[in-house]
Amino acid sequence: MPAYPSGVHLENTKVSSGNNADANSRNYIPNSAATSKNSNVPTKFCSHSMPKGSTFNETIPNGTIPKPSNLKLRNSNIDKPKSSPFNSFRTWSEKFGRQISNLHGKHWETALGMDSQQPAEVEVLSVDRYFDALEGPELDTLRASEEVLLPEDKIWPFLLRYPISSFSISLGISSQAIMWKTLATSTSTKFLHVSPDINLMLWCTSVALVAIVFCIYNLKVIFYFEAVRREYYHPIRINFFFAPWIALLFLVLGVPPSVTQNLHTCLWYILMTPIVCLEIKIYGQWMSGGQRRLSWVANPSNHLSVVGNFVGASLGASMGMKEGPVFFFAIGLAHYRVLFVTLYQRLPTNETLPKELHPVFFLFVAAPSVASMAWAKIQGSFDYGSRISSFIALFLYFSLAISLNFFRGFRFSLAWWAYTFPMTGAAIATIRYSNVVKNAITKTLTVFLCSVSTLTVGALLVTTIIHASVLRDLFPNDIAIAISERRIKSTPRWYHRRGGSSDMKDIEQYLKYRNPDDKDIDASLKPPSLTDQDASPCSR
Amino acid sequence: MPAYPSGVHLENTKVSSGNNADANSRNYIPNSAATSKNSNVPTKFCSHSMPKGSTFNETIPNGTIPKPSNLKLRNSNIDKPKSSPFNSFRTWSEKFGRQISNLHGKHWETALGMDSQQPAEVEVLSVDRYFDALEGPELDTLRASEEVLLPEDKIWPFLLRYPISSFSISLGISSQAIMWKTLATSTSTKFLHVSPDINLMLWCTSVALVAIVFCIYNLKVIFYFEAVRREYYHPIRINFFFAPWIALLFLVLGVPPSVTQNLHTCLWYILMTPIVCLEIKIYGQWMSGGQRRLSWVANPSNHLSVVGNFVGASLGASMGMKEGPVFFFAIGLAHYRVLFVTLYQRLPTNETLPKELHPVFFLFVAAPSVASMAWAKIQGSFDYGSRISSFIALFLYFSLAISLNFFRGFRFSLAWWAYTFPMTGAAIATIRYSNVVKNAITKTLTVFLCSVSTLTVGALLVTTIIHASVLRDLFPNDIAIAISERRIKSTPRWYHRRGGSSDMKDIEQYLKYRNPDDKDIDASLKPPSLTDQDASPCSR
Amino acid sequence: MPAYPSGVHLENTKVSSGNNADANSRNYIPNSAATSKNSNVPTKFCSHSMPKGSTFNETIPNGTIPKPSNLKLRNSNIDKPKSSPFNSFRTWSEKFGRQISNLHGKHWETALGMDSQQPAEVEVLSVDRYFDALEGPELDTLRASEEVLLPEDKIWPFLLRYPISSFSISLGISSQAIMWKTLATSTSTKFLHVSPDINLMLWCTSVALVAIVFCIYNLKVIFYFEAVRREYYHPIRINFFFAPWIALLFLVLGVPPSVTQNLHTCLWYILMTPIVCLEIKIYGQWMSGGQRRLSWVANPSNHLSVVGNFVGASLGASMGMKEGPVFFFAIGLAHYRVLFVTLYQRLPTNETLPKELHPVFFLFVAAPSVASMAWAKIQGSFDYGSRISSFIALFLYFSLAISLNFFRGFRFSLAWWAYTFPMTGAAIATIRYSNVVKNAITKTLTVFLCSVSTLTVGALLVTTIIHASVLRDLFPNDIAIAISERRIKSTPRWYHRRGGSSDMKDIEQYLKYRNPDDKDIDASLKPPSLTDQDASPCSR
Repeated sequence: MPAYPSGVHLENTKVSSGNNADANSRNYIPNSAATSKNSNVPTKFCSHSMPKGSTFNETIPNGTIPKPSNLKLRNSNIDKPKSSPFNSFRTWSEKFGRQISNLHGKHWETALGMDSQQPAEVEVLSVDRYFDALEGPELDTLRASEEVLLPEDKIWPFLLRYPISSFSISLGISSQAIMWKTLATSTSTKFLHVSPDINLMLWCTSVALVAIVFCIYNLKVIFYFEAVRREYYHPIRINFFFAPWIALLFLVLGVPPSVTQNLHTCLWYILMTPIVCLEIKIYGQWMSGGQRRLSWVANPSNHLSVVGNFVGASLGASMGMKEGPVFFFAIGLAHYRVLFVTLYQRLPTNETLPKELHPVFFLFVAAPSVASMAWAKIQGSFDYGSRISSFIALFLYFSLAISLNFFRGFRFSLAWWAYTFPMTGAAIATIRYSNVVKNAITKTLTVFLCSVSTLTVGALLVTTIIHASVLRDLFPNDIAIAISERRIKSTPRWYHRRGGSSDMKDIEQYLKYRNPDDKDIDASLKPPSLTDQDASPCSR
Repeated sequence: MPAYPSGVHLENTKVSSGNNADANSRNYIPNSAATSKNSNVPTKFCSHSMPKGSTFNETIPNGTIPKPSNLKLRNSNIDKPKSSPFNSFRTWSEKFGRQISNLHGKHWETALGMDSQQPAEVEVLSVDRYFDALEGPELDTLRASEEVLLPEDKIWPFLLRYPISSFSISLGISSQAIMWKTLATSTSTKFLHVSPDINLMLWCTSVALVAIVFCIYNLKVIFYFEAVRREYYHPIRINFFFAPWIALLFLVLGVPPSVTQNLHTCLWYILMTPIVCLEIKIYGQWMSGGQRRLSWVANPSNHLSVVGNFVGASLGASMGMKEGPVFFFAIGLAHYRVLFVTLYQRLPTNETLPKELHPVFFLFVAAPSVASMAWAKIQGSFDYGSRISSFIALFLYFSLAISLNFFRGFRFSLAWWAYTFPMTGAAIATIRYSNVVKNAITKTLTVFLCSVSTLTVGALLVTTIIHASVLRDLFPNDIAIAISERRIKSTPRWYHRRGGSSDMKDIEQYLKYRNPDDKDIDASLKPPSLTDQDASPCSR
Repeated sequence: MPAYPSGVHLENTKVSSGNNADANSRNYIPNSAATSKNSNVPTKFCSHSMPKGSTFNETIPNGTIPKPSNLKLRNSNIDKPKSSPFNSFRTWSEKFGRQISNLHGKHWETALGMDSQQPAEVEVLSVDRYFDALEGPELDTLRASEEVLLPEDKIWPFLLRYPISSFSISLGISSQAIMWKTLATSTSTKFLHVSPDINLMLWCTSVALVAIVFCIYNLKVIFYFEAVRREYYHPIRINFFFAPWIALLFLVLGVPPSVTQNLHTCLWYILMTPIVCLEIKIYGQWMSGGQRRLSWVANPSNHLSVVGNFVGASLGASMGMKEGPVFFFAIGLAHYRVLFVTLYQRLPTNETLPKELHPVFFLFVAAPSVASMAWAKIQGSFDYGSRISSFIALFLYFSLAISLNFFRGFRFSLAWWAYTFPMTGAAIATIRYSNVVKNAITKTLTVFLCSVSTLTVGALLVTTIIHASVLRDLFPNDIAIAISERRIKSTPRWYHRRGGSSDMKDIEQYLKYRNPDDKDIDASLKPPSLTDQDASPCSR
């Protein structure tokens, strides 16, 4: 052995890795994305085949020993089932846990399982992690390569499964209340003889619904603050934090004439305050160019962040205010233009939306239809500005209605409710328009759009009730908030990030092609003792 | 031999490939893009040096045996010259061919040459392929590395060479008819004493021209539907599908007062229908984020897709309609803003336009000048909105006129005609403007712009006639529709895609640098029998 | 030896490089960006540890011999201290130097040091080089890996250190003059009893300041034209070339009523001419898609290029003109929209701005507040257009004021002055607004914004005077104009270009990971004689 320079070992290491390479290259038929993705990440195979890891150690391929930290993490999940894994999201236990941990040292930490490793990292769950770990139009499905902090096979506590997007139901119902109020009071729809009682009934339902949803979510804020915070940093969910306030604005806009005619402007100021605060936060993130820059997080659900402005402007103007509504209209307009262009461009960095089109696109219709009504209220008449706005909404509506393949990729989720209020918005804008331009076409359009919107909300309501009572899966485990902070394997960070980006995919493909070679590096990093044995045949 | 482990073979394979690598690295002087691109694609050399492939087999470098399918493809071109290669684009033969092929089995397919391989793939000619295979501002020049399906050395059937951009001629002439009509009827240009007969003459010419162009293109639709479909999926050509309808709108707008004063609004609805359909299709593609997303296909010729809206709005308003024109104006405005921002940004993904500026940029002038006229018609006066629009058009006009290097990269094509109507549009907008602001400057500007526009159209007409009758190259082989579905060599797909993208170029350069190493993989994939022979000297 | 095929040499070369790879991979702990970046660029270490290079040759690692040209460059800096290195930027010496050089041959060139190498390359200092070599929000800090042409340890001639951004001081002071003029003349601020003398005093100061700054910069143009040209091609500095003309427009707008009431419109035409010329140049560069395309050079300082339009429109309209102001307003509006969207999107290609937010963002406030005033002047009343504009400005103002962390990354530079005039602009717009909407809120807002703006300018004035007289570092060496044309090491060009781009960083990381392998290539390029020696143990 001493007669051979160290290089020989390496060369022979290459030999064995060469075989690996060969085997790997035979696997190279790109039969499915999932399989081919894994081809150069051997340890991932284990994480797939035995996610719960009981017989973990027997199946580890030669030479790919998982990092101890990962093992510990898994084992801590398995070995200590008595300590609840949900503690890490619990507001009080965590706080108390840490305080007591400071008193009692490491014993408590061990009792809590991996909880003791959390605090420092929880702070820095970056937007990258969300994009890395999740997929789907609402970023709520776990990628195959990732694992979650909480047990996937159990049903989590109700509050942990209760997402901020639950407010979408209120959006859907309360916008219907406004529509039926408009139908009952508009001159152009007199011929329909709509009773104001429908508005009253829907409004009362909405009030009850909003109250319930608010209460439950407040409980989540109190008991699982970490979960709320993770929703807040989620690049899609953050937009749904506008939903509660928009729902309240809808309630005020849809208040039946029989309940009250005059509302105090104070209410408007109270409702607009959280919207302004959220906007300063979110628009600031867009602009500042950090991880949450617009060119990365752009998604149709961003529309929710401008819709609030227009609804607020509409309400303010109908309360008789002058400057406040224009202020919100101005901010909304400026950011809507930015958003519209960005979303229409479909920058190469925005790849989240899948090919099968999705109701998420209907949010495109929301902003212009609400803007049209807001401007009509501010200006006092349905002028060219309002018309241009509502025509854009109508065009987008029909364009989507024609091109959407509704029955593909239909997977119900609560977020669908957010996609119904744009339909209702377009219907209301059309009623307003038909008040100005009265002819058969506008009347037909009004009736058609109102019917479609009511039918959609009705269908969704039935679906929701079925999911809630029969299927009992209305609130599935909310994977999106339970992703781990670190990825399991040290694959290059960008490997998954923009899975849909074709440039990246191509590089990925290139990497796969280069894959056999990567073994060389792995081999060269092996301790000499291992390679010496392989090298021995050559030394004879 | 059995004394040596399999690894030794591999190692020696590396030896021979190492020589290749060495040779390759000596070639690495980046003397020209074309040469250096080929440095790691050895088989490409053969495709260049002998595109028709007669002595193909003798010159294949060791170890790089082309795939049988490619060989067959080439040979099928060569060995069976009697069966027309144009059949694959022919509407009837293809349909019949396939039917009969189903009856008679493989014999018919063989008789048709490569045709039998087509049908399945033709369906999925992706936008990537167009970008991969073509270059130039109109994506109509074949990249050096690609091959076409149809014989390049023959002149193809006339209909196959007749592109959709032929309608551009009608755009140029019929917009002149409108300009001379405006000159004859405007108060500000009374001092020029323009005869309305010029309008009449130009209009009659345009009608004849449009009729001829329409007839011929309809023949193409009937006889070579596959060619039309490929033009339709071509990311630049698709925009020219608006040209026929814009030309018809121009005809109606430019109709001489002596012919008719009143047109039925029915005409407007008929003409706007195809425009709406095309728009729903194209804007949907932009937004949905597939391959034809706006951030990829953005190109000045996209302006054609918004110009139709403004021309339609203009015509509708001059017919006395109210809502329809505003509807089209609104859609046009919304998408024009998206387009303007996107084109001005010059996203890193849009690299198609070459450095030497090109008349294609003049389309930037078209939309604002037409929008200015449309808004003036809708609003009833040349107000601030119209002025802002027309001033933007004028600024872009002069900015381009100053910075364009007209006499560089001058390569005439039919598409140039599309770039003349923006000039005419700006001239007409200026006449309208000079009706409102009457002074020496506006009059001078009007006369100047009208002269430039007429002179340009005249010069182009002469050039076109020369090309048509003397040079006989007005309709060269339309390479853009005859690209093959697959690239010849299995280079990474993104290797060429954005040839101009510097990031990609750098990666490309990196890949070239890494190139010698790639041989290792190739080598490691070789069957052992081959490598054993190479390894023999070492075994002694 | 002849018994072994050439491949054996290669294989053994791999052996020794394998060791290198091993050593390298041990360094791979990514402790800091700077260190890890260097891990695959060994020669960079030397350029860090001994930038002045006296004991340069002793520390070169094995096998990485710097290119002779670089060595010469450094030595020429060291060995010939008598010939001034600043000659290369001197207008006359260079011209004369070259003429005489043509007469006397190479002797003169040698006497001038590296100067003889300059002329050809100076022409092509590309925008890439600026991004490669510089960092910071104003691209004025040298990257660690770069070297400058001029001696960093000496204080350069004053004119070379005097940047175009010095005009920012005039912007700050002259906008204050306008604000105090508006305060003194507005009806809504009558209750403050502001004396018009403050305006007079500030205006006179501004005039003096502008005159001085103009004179000095003109001297720079005359004596160091190369330095001016490098500022002109600098992607951030170019925007400051608008500052002189905006400062002059501010002076004319702020002229005290006691000095003159009527200004000749001729003045307006004179002042707008350079602005139009610069705009045609810059907007043309954005659009044409070359290196200075908008998606690359987008930076808040671009706002300076649209502010000029609005200020010009404002002045023109207040002089009683009609069409000219609308023309400039239209151009400004069109390009402002493009800019606003682009800057808000924060494209992945724009990474220049650091995380710690910077006053540079305040330029976002400038354009809408100036646009608001311009439109009010054009329209004759503070209508919805003006309000929308000024509300956008106010929202951005407060949004930035809340989110900016003013006391982080505070590094004073002259450019800061440019970031004060937006505050003043917003204050003036608010005064105008309070003339229309008179209530306690608008009055409070007016007083607050005016105070903040004056205090900021005052604080900045004091800071500037301290830096000028006490610290004597108001004009540090202007590194930005003295970067070398070529990078020192032949790292891939895109390695640094978008240092912040995470995609690129990831690829970078990938490259680092691949790094050990790169040695193979290096090794394979080595002359056989070297590898033969290594191979000898194997041959026994």
